[in-house]
Amino acid sequence: MMVGEQIKQIIGFEASDDGSELMTSHNPANDDKVAEFFIATTAEVDKAVEKAAAAFQLYRKKSGTEKAGFLEAIADEIMAIGEELVTVCCAESGLPQGRIAGERGRTTGQLKLFADLLKEGSWLDARIETANPDRVPLPKPDIRSMQIPLGPVVVFGASNFPLAFSVAGGDTASALAAGCSVVVKAHPAHPATSWLIGKAIQKAARSTGMPDGVFSLLFGDGPVLGAQLVKHPEVKAVGFTGSFGAGKAIYDLAVRRDVPIPVYAEMGSTNPVFILPQALQNHGDAIAKGFSGSVTLGVGQFCTNPGMLIYETSEVFTAKLEGEFKQTLGGVMLTTHIYQSYNTGIDRHANTAGVLELAKGNTPGGLNTAMPTLFKIKSDALKTHPDLSEEVFGPTSMVVEATSRRDMLEIARNLTGHLTATVHGTDSDLADYKDLLDILEQKVGRLLINGFPTGVEVCSAMVHGGPFPATTDSRSTSVGTAAINRFTRPVCYQNMPQDLLPDELKNNNVLGIWRLVNGSLSKEEI
Amino acid sequence: MMVGEQIKQIIGFEASDDGSELMTSHNPANDDKVAEFFIATTAEVDKAVEKAAAAFQLYRKKSGTEKAGFLEAIADEIMAIGEELVTVCCAESGLPQGRIAGERGRTTGQLKLFADLLKEGSWLDARIETANPDRVPLPKPDIRSMQIPLGPVVVFGASNFPLAFSVAGGDTASALAAGCSVVVKAHPAHPATSWLIGKAIQKAARSTGMPDGVFSLLFGDGPVLGAQLVKHPEVKAVGFTGSFGAGKAIYDLAVRRDVPIPVYAEMGSTNPVFILPQALQNHGDAIAKGFSGSVTLGVGQFCTNPGMLIYETSEVFTAKLEGEFKQTLGGVMLTTHIYQSYNTGIDRHANTAGVLELAKGNTPGGLNTAMPTLFKIKSDALKTHPDLSEEVFGPTSMVVEATSRRDMLEIARNLTGHLTATVHGTDSDLADYKDLLDILEQKVGRLLINGFPTGVEVCSAMVHGGPFPATTDSRSTSVGTAAINRFTRPVCYQNMPQDLLPDELKNNNVLGIWRLVNGSLSKEEI
Repeated sequence: MMVGEQIKQIIGFEASDDGSELMTSHNPANDDKVAEFFIATTAEVDKAVEKAAAAFQLYRKKSGTEKAGFLEAIADEIMAIGEELVTVCCAESGLPQGRIAGERGRTTGQLKLFADLLKEGSWLDARIETANPDRVPLPKPDIRSMQIPLGPVVVFGASNFPLAFSVAGGDTASALAAGCSVVVKAHPAHPATSWLIGKAIQKAARSTGMPDGVFSLLFGDGPVLGAQLVKHPEVKAVGFTGSFGAGKAIYDLAVRRDVPIPVYAEMGSTNPVFILPQALQNHGDAIAKGFSGSVTLGVGQFCTNPGMLIYETSEVFTAKLEGEFKQTLGGVMLTTHIYQSYNTGIDRHANTAGVLELAKGNTPGGLNTAMPTLFKIKSDALKTHPDLSEEVFGPTSMVVEATSRRDMLEIARNLTGHLTATVHGTDSDLADYKDLLDILEQKVGRLLINGFPTGVEVCSAMVHGGPFPATTDSRSTSVGTAAINRFTRPVCYQNMPQDLLPDELKNNNVLGIWRLVNGSLSKEEI
Repeated sequence: MMVGEQIKQIIGFEASDDGSELMTSHNPANDDKVAEFFIATTAEVDKAVEKAAAAFQLYRKKSGTEKAGFLEAIADEIMAIGEELVTVCCAESGLPQGRIAGERGRTTGQLKLFADLLKEGSWLDARIETANPDRVPLPKPDIRSMQIPLGPVVVFGASNFPLAFSVAGGDTASALAAGCSVVVKAHPAHPATSWLIGKAIQKAARSTGMPDGVFSLLFGDGPVLGAQLVKHPEVKAVGFTGSFGAGKAIYDLAVRRDVPIPVYAEMGSTNPVFILPQALQNHGDAIAKGFSGSVTLGVGQFCTNPGMLIYETSEVFTAKLEGEFKQTLGGVMLTTHIYQSYNTGIDRHANTAGVLELAKGNTPGGLNTAMPTLFKIKSDALKTHPDLSEEVFGPTSMVVEATSRRDMLEIARNLTGHLTATVHGTDSDLADYKDLLDILEQKVGRLLINGFPTGVEVCSAMVHGGPFPATTDSRSTSVGTAAINRFTRPVCYQNMPQDLLPDELKNNNVLGIWRLVNGSLSKEEI
């Protein structure tokens, strides 16, 4: 398929095609051209950000209910696109229909989750300390604080979730929920998908009375457009999901600005999985099967793909794993570039001394089709070749044979930051390996027991984050309701008259939210 | 006075004097030597941080009650030092006894406030999402998250609050409360004070069974020792209060590490004060008096000192202000260096075209004694000389005459980030200037009405922070209970067995804390 017109920039309520250069997206399965898009000019970038800054002054004053209405309208408009969205997205990503339909549900679900959070209202951490004029030696002033939005946020669409981590994904949803205007840099792999979603957001903004500029969508060459956006003085924060190289480059630009800004870059990780002795013995079949499935799910193109499996040497289990992994199936990868990077990574591992290719899966054949590949090393190889622990994006994993309990702990201690770590163990195993759990919780954002890390629940308790290099800010999550806190900061008002306070901080608590009043949580009025 | 022995490094439970170089502190009022201290060697720095890293593994497991006991013991040990602390601190800082005694109360009060926060326990944001195995298409896992400490924290003692923002000040108290071990770099202006406090913390750590290395105190040359600490791989976060130059240098080092770490540098600001027309007319006397007092309080050595005063040209009010300011009294500054910087700043302003010296106060005379100085400019001078809006640390301020309401808003719009902004206005003024309040809340951490910014209430709602360049991280506060959040990050546990979960996340809620259970706050068990 081919989208007819050339895709333009979405700058607030306008379309803009000032650019003269074009880029093209292709179906990775057959290299057919899917869409052509203009590269944004510098003036267009400036215009989008300036509009975002102007819109922010209006949008930040919208009530929680109004912002919730906007997010719900976005969800509705996305559904209203209908099957065209699924068709276009499948063509641009090579992902199957079922997956894209599911991801669409996740995307609209996220928007609605943030809408619910806004309608409930307690998320903004209202804190009230009432005055005490009689206190000695000094009277106590009236102090009230809450979270306010940072300003225009730049969001980088990710390739591997063309809906849920892209134009209307978690970063955009949480930034809009926080009260920030958003400029999205579309991922060049799925411009037509991005454009359909961008138009949906634009429609929702109009229909719910949001200001022109609350949302813009720019297309262009990644590094050039990205740098223009990150360096723009009016931009106040950045959300990113993608590779370490790109995320770290964005971080480096942001911290070197005259006025540094926070960057929330989720840069993926290897997501180590540990199997403890009894589980290895008693549940080896299920673990071998589950692990092989998790490594190859979605052609291994998840940030939480388990890229390392650690257990004490067991020929029996290794044979099971080999048997299971041989039954896995590869598939078309998201882009030719990703496919090539995968093969480069596989070749590098295969040619590293001490690395054994344990098993290959199957491939349906065809363009950009990855072959699942499982490697095996002994633990000492990690010390001489620490790069063996680095993520290769795709359906591959590295089995690490530990020589002892102590060796397993040492492997854990030497881990860098990861999004997740997983431990398989019986109750008795887990009690014996409390020290392992203790090490791992310091390395990750999410610690799983007897599961697999692929599949990230969108909820209030999720932490999709982790210490560097998994992310550039371990204090945050990019999935779940707490993601909203990335785009706010606290402000306090001292002796502000009631009628000038935000509703959230007025005595009467008209919104009925939870507030910390003189140190105690309460929904009461004052 | 002169402390007898040469001051050694406090490295966990040990004293260490491996250094060969010495530095000296002096009484700024008479240049008498107060104390000599060794400069920490590189090996001593490494030892302190390595001990902090080892201690962290034990300390992070202490319960809230245990950590609270430690903080309370620190407060008790500080009081147990008795009058020697006040005497030594006055000698090293030039600050009067009453102020130091008051600051001691603030310091122990902060420690106790964090102890209370820990005993209550809800601060760590426990979030629980219970499993739903029957959900379609996918079962919902059990997910539980809470804040965990980051690791060893480096704290830089500040010169201007030798107790409340120094060795046992807000940064140390909040980092220890968070569960982090702490290495303090003593400010070279008050080593004897630092040493007395350091010994008190060491005693408290011993008596409450805290691990060796939970706290260390190092002395040395600022930039060298500071850089060694900030660059150490085991250091996970930094707290700082001081100058823009030093704070920004620390930030730059931290973000360029192989593994970047968060820096919470509070770098001061000019804290603009706006007077609206009716207030100017009706309350001019009180405002002129209050403002002059706030500028010169503590010889103007507060981060929240009001360094800029903006109102529409009024000869009557300016005359009042001149009259009040002439009655102010200067005093001894904290160090010769600060005194010299003050004079350099005053001279720079005095020699800038368009700057009028409106009034000088009085000085008691003597060494390092600052003369209060009030300048006046017309608003257009700010455009040609933006440095006129920069902080000069000491008892000085800049009156900015605005030509109109619009001009006043323009001045507000051009402000960089500040810790505070203040507006004086009648109810009618404030209603007329909602747009000014709206601009200002985006520039500061704290917005005050009809008060003065000096005096920072230590409570749950305080925000002592603000956009860059006031701080390097506007998402935080360095005063009040929310300061604890600077030193933690969230972690989540998926399908973790009950007995392996932290107490805070177990079904039975044995600690009785507030938790977000399936999206709703509750103290109930599950």
